[in-house]
Amino acid sequence: MPASDLTPSSTAQQVAIDLGDRSYPIVIGPSLLGDAATYAALPRSASALVVTNSTVAPLYARALRATLEARHAAVHTVILPDGEEHKGWQTLNLIFDALLQHGCDRKTVLYALGGGVVGDMTGFAAASYMRGVPFVQVPTTLLAQVDSSVGGKTAINHPLGKNMIGAFYQPLLVVCDLDTLKTLPARELSAGLAEIIKYGPIADMAFLDWIEANLEALLAREPAALAHAVRRSCEIKAAVVGQDEREAGLRAILNFGHTFGHAIESGLGYGEWLHGEAVGCGMVMAAQLSQRLGLVDSAFVQRLTSLIGRAGLPTVAPRLGAERYLALMRVDKKAEAGEIKFVVIEQPGRAAVRGAPDALVREVIDACCA
Amino acid sequence: MPASDLTPSSTAQQVAIDLGDRSYPIVIGPSLLGDAATYAALPRSASALVVTNSTVAPLYARALRATLEARHAAVHTVILPDGEEHKGWQTLNLIFDALLQHGCDRKTVLYALGGGVVGDMTGFAAASYMRGVPFVQVPTTLLAQVDSSVGGKTAINHPLGKNMIGAFYQPLLVVCDLDTLKTLPARELSAGLAEIIKYGPIADMAFLDWIEANLEALLAREPAALAHAVRRSCEIKAAVVGQDEREAGLRAILNFGHTFGHAIESGLGYGEWLHGEAVGCGMVMAAQLSQRLGLVDSAFVQRLTSLIGRAGLPTVAPRLGAERYLALMRVDKKAEAGEIKFVVIEQPGRAAVRGAPDALVREVIDACCA
Repeated sequence: MPASDLTPSSTAQQVAIDLGDRSYPIVIGPSLLGDAATYAALPRSASALVVTNSTVAPLYARALRATLEARHAAVHTVILPDGEEHKGWQTLNLIFDALLQHGCDRKTVLYALGGGVVGDMTGFAAASYMRGVPFVQVPTTLLAQVDSSVGGKTAINHPLGKNMIGAFYQPLLVVCDLDTLKTLPARELSAGLAEIIKYGPIADMAFLDWIEANLEALLAREPAALAHAVRRSCEIKAAVVGQDEREAGLRAILNFGHTFGHAIESGLGYGEWLHGEAVGCGMVMAAQLSQRLGLVDSAFVQRLTSLIGRAGLPTVAPRLGAERYLALMRVDKKAEAGEIKFVVIEQPGRAAVRGAPDALVREVIDACCA
Repeated sequence: MPASDLTPSSTAQQVAIDLGDRSYPIVIGPSLLGDAATYAALPRSASALVVTNSTVAPLYARALRATLEARHAAVHTVILPDGEEHKGWQTLNLIFDALLQHGCDRKTVLYALGGGVVGDMTGFAAASYMRGVPFVQVPTTLLAQVDSSVGGKTAINHPLGKNMIGAFYQPLLVVCDLDTLKTLPARELSAGLAEIIKYGPIADMAFLDWIEANLEALLAREPAALAHAVRRSCEIKAAVVGQDEREAGLRAILNFGHTFGHAIESGLGYGEWLHGEAVGCGMVMAAQLSQRLGLVDSAFVQRLTSLIGRAGLPTVAPRLGAERYLALMRVDKKAEAGEIKFVVIEQPGRAAVRGAPDALVREVIDACCA
């Protein structure tokens, strides 16, 4: 057997993020995390810091550390508390404390081992420590593998708004080890499906057809189905990010469902609903808004709502009150001079960013909270 | 009189920072801060946030606000506590709190009105708020006008190291209003002179000659002398930054005196010595190290030490103990795998970054603390 058959490339797939000198690969497959070959192309450095959380550390930190110890003379670990409610300054500072206590320098590589919260915080820490050190994403949740680990958006939350403080900062590599999805709680699997479903209405209705036909296989965690869903999601995201890294325009369509979703997360208190759950429900609301704007028909809204429900996600919004929703959405990053911008579906498979009359938004909120 | 003679350009000088699509001008002259023409080329936006401190606000905030109110429908202000010891997370969060409480969006322009601490924190807040909003530097200290406001280095301190958390993020414009130097305390004027003197040994010995000949005029705040010193300093910094924005190599020479200086600041506790004072003394130490490395002669060290003393800066280092100095310098951002890197003078007018034997560094510390 030739040596190349022993490397992950024999089973792993790659999706390239094309951003000039900030380009990097996403590798997708089983058994990647603990395989030295996965990291072979990374620059060498004396030290590394693995950033993970209290849930993921007992499952995967040892395997990752063991592999990295062959590359770095010193491999340190910092374990953050788990949960969106910890995605703030205080937790971020635990990363900086560890970097400085261990004497980490400008070449130290940070490895984000965990879900979206770990990835977003590690990425922002890497962007900011000594004004920028290299980092690698090792996402262990479906949501992080198909969305948050890809594209270089990093951030922490502020009490007044989600992801308000952060940086565009690209990793050197994203490692989507599909084996890590075996230990994922069912609720988190569903949350990841929300972001997968999202790619259909905004970019690829054939992918939506495929998801509808394969939802049972995805919920049963069949490896081939998960591999296809992760790869296709990353391909779509890579194409969008490659055209608009810093969200000057097009990239905003990836926030379909997120304007309403962020309001739900912030309004209920971070951690009450998972991010993917809020996005699932937010897509129902954004689809309803698209319909009320005369862009799509009720059959489309029904179809999307039904799929979101089948994926185990909420389709009825929490009763925060219309005025509270509007106030929360006015601090969304897409808002301009107080006007809320929504990602709407112009026609199935194509999204756009636009404003909407408050009265229409109130109707949507009333209808979705019923 | 043609209209153009009424604009600040008739008395102001400009230095360009050439960084492709991140290029911007430094305007230098009297009466700039409160002149609408100064800001005429900036993009319009609905809102602005002036970030200043409790010392500068009573002096200049009203004039700046009055001018900005013609450009922005809403001009908000946040007043930070004054001093290097406040350059941390807690103070930075006051800026984010203000931005969110006032509903500031991605187009909101931040104006940093103050010295290096205000500029560094406002710049990092601008880099991070919603992953990046525009900002303008309006430096009101000599040190900020000749160094910290130019070149896009932004940061906050960590208890274990200075400027450890930050971003490379360029302003849209730097406004050096020389009138603001009239109210500067003498100690701060001297601190600014440290960074001006720095440009001589690293880049331009003719400028060092000029400073020696004009030091009394600078200490007497003669406008023509200050204008020349600020302009020439900005020219040298612009040339260096234009070649190496993110400090891959050359830019590190701007840190002459800063490796020892940061150790002094951190070792004494931030705010005990001014940054410029620590840099002044740090240059004496770095010059001594250069001599012990056989690069320059004692006459050069004497000449530089004498000028630094004449400028009202300390030339004798605080007695922290050699081991404490070494420990503090090992977390300097230029250090690699625990090896401290120093900016040394290779020959008068030319600097380089290199390591040095610990024994030699201990000799320098002993000699300079005597």
